[in-house]
Amino acid sequence: MARRELGPAALRVGRAVADHLPDGGAVVGCSGGADSLALALGAAWAAARTGADVAAVVVDHGLRPDSGHVSSRVVEQLRGRGLDARVVRVQVEPDHPDGLEAAARHARLATLEATGRPVLLGHTLDDQAETVLLGLLRGSGTRSLAGMAAVRGPFIRPLLGLRRADTEAACGEWGIEPWQDPMNDDERYARVRTRRLLPLLTDELGRDVAPALARTARLARADADHLDALALAAVPQRQWLEVADLEPLPDALLWRVVRRWLAARSPSSGMEHVLAVARLVGHWHGQGPVAVPGAVVRRVGGRLLVEPSGAARQDDGDPSS
Amino acid sequence: MARRELGPAALRVGRAVADHLPDGGAVVGCSGGADSLALALGAAWAAARTGADVAAVVVDHGLRPDSGHVSSRVVEQLRGRGLDARVVRVQVEPDHPDGLEAAARHARLATLEATGRPVLLGHTLDDQAETVLLGLLRGSGTRSLAGMAAVRGPFIRPLLGLRRADTEAACGEWGIEPWQDPMNDDERYARVRTRRLLPLLTDELGRDVAPALARTARLARADADHLDALALAAVPQRQWLEVADLEPLPDALLWRVVRRWLAARSPSSGMEHVLAVARLVGHWHGQGPVAVPGAVVRRVGGRLLVEPSGAARQDDGDPSS
Repeated sequence: MARRELGPAALRVGRAVADHLPDGGAVVGCSGGADSLALALGAAWAAARTGADVAAVVVDHGLRPDSGHVSSRVVEQLRGRGLDARVVRVQVEPDHPDGLEAAARHARLATLEATGRPVLLGHTLDDQAETVLLGLLRGSGTRSLAGMAAVRGPFIRPLLGLRRADTEAACGEWGIEPWQDPMNDDERYARVRTRRLLPLLTDELGRDVAPALARTARLARADADHLDALALAAVPQRQWLEVADLEPLPDALLWRVVRRWLAARSPSSGMEHVLAVARLVGHWHGQGPVAVPGAVVRRVGGRLLVEPSGAARQDDGDPSS
Repeated sequence: MARRELGPAALRVGRAVADHLPDGGAVVGCSGGADSLALALGAAWAAARTGADVAAVVVDHGLRPDSGHVSSRVVEQLRGRGLDARVVRVQVEPDHPDGLEAAARHARLATLEATGRPVLLGHTLDDQAETVLLGLLRGSGTRSLAGMAAVRGPFIRPLLGLRRADTEAACGEWGIEPWQDPMNDDERYARVRTRRLLPLLTDELGRDVAPALARTARLARADADHLDALALAAVPQRQWLEVADLEPLPDALLWRVVRRWLAARSPSSGMEHVLAVARLVGHWHGQGPVAVPGAVVRRVGGRLLVEPSGAARQDDGDPSS
């Protein structure tokens, strides 16, 4: 990349990346949108100062007829700036139980992880705020309000403290044109619908709400991390749960222990099922089994046991959410 | 109150109150709005079945010229249904630091508490959802997402599981006309602005978001209760904080210990100040004092000390939020 004076937004991006770039370098996941394009150029700038090895990977999900063309264009843009860049084509499972959006994300992250190197991702504070709002609207507790981790496994998000406006301005300063993903306007995607909510809240309240939501993420993450660790240590990991182990626990730990145990045995179960199962401990009056997706949970002889629904009388559908 | 067949919504209200009504009875805080009017009639219904003693208190804040008239009308409505009801006039501090809305609430709750009896309050699931959303938009963590307690001190909220639509329908079934508080349309009040946000989110997402928010409150409350208890037990309560006590703590507890200590010494400090002070522990590199409202915090000889800002060199204003 040509060395020249950076504009102020590009400098903010470059410094944020430099603060997070491992000494051994990293690959940058790049869609060609403003966030990841700025991330890639920021990484190139930071790497040029330290000699770290940085390469961009453009994942082609093959979900649109022009995706190959778009990916090639992004790679050309990056190579034009002196970045090592390549396309990796992935197969997205069309009937993924969590939907196409989640399937594409899983395929993309798996491909980036398979490079065996640290992976930089371009999520900004605005993405973080949207994630927190989505989590709130799911109503599944503190972990779902924790947003995305700055560092988790091989994934590093250097731009969580910057705004989308920063990455857009940075692209302008670098004179590079981001790709406008039409999926970003496709209302079938939950993320797209949520993206509209933040400006709506900001308009109604007359102040930018994203920073408060991002701070909520940071605080909720610390709480969820500590409570999850306490819950993991609270009871032995077994096929069943001993009621005597559960009874002394505060709800914060009881619900986590039940959730973890249940998730391994009824993967589609939600928080409403966790709370229903927990009543077999905290509100026990000899009641019958609790139906959860694909299974029932019953309390027998001081233990909570789970068995496939076929194997037992099944109560009516879901407990109310 | 005349005994007769209750309508379905009135029955939901009546049963919810019956589930929470102390054997010795209670006073009902009643503004004359649908929620508290339904609560009062539900309490009368529940009390008639158990013989419990129930009385309604209508707090006149004196904030509007017609408030005396309105309060008298509500008392007449309630007496017309056989309820013991009276007006209590309170003085609202006009220049309360938290604003007029908070001042009125404080005065109202203090008056109700001064009866020395359990106090029923008419908050519904919709109020709970609004409280959670307000907490989220403040960005001050899990406790601020915990909403209102079903039971706290003398205050009992029997209707937290019911909807505003239930209380309105119940009033219709009881044939009693709720008072429409013009303050409910006054955009100067934070609660009024928030009240508009929930329908907005519900419209945008095409589903009712209030139940998920209310469930978030329940989960967040359990987490905050446990973590607050752990934090309280984590360090001795002293004028200073020992760094050696703080260093082993996870962020979830460190931030709570600092927050509690700081709140007693700089009551206007917010979460941004707590995080800045916590950096004197977790990111210590010999930095100078941290400015908080009315004071500075410095790390000296392995201790965090707070002193009034006048007494020391003060750094620039607030740390960034």
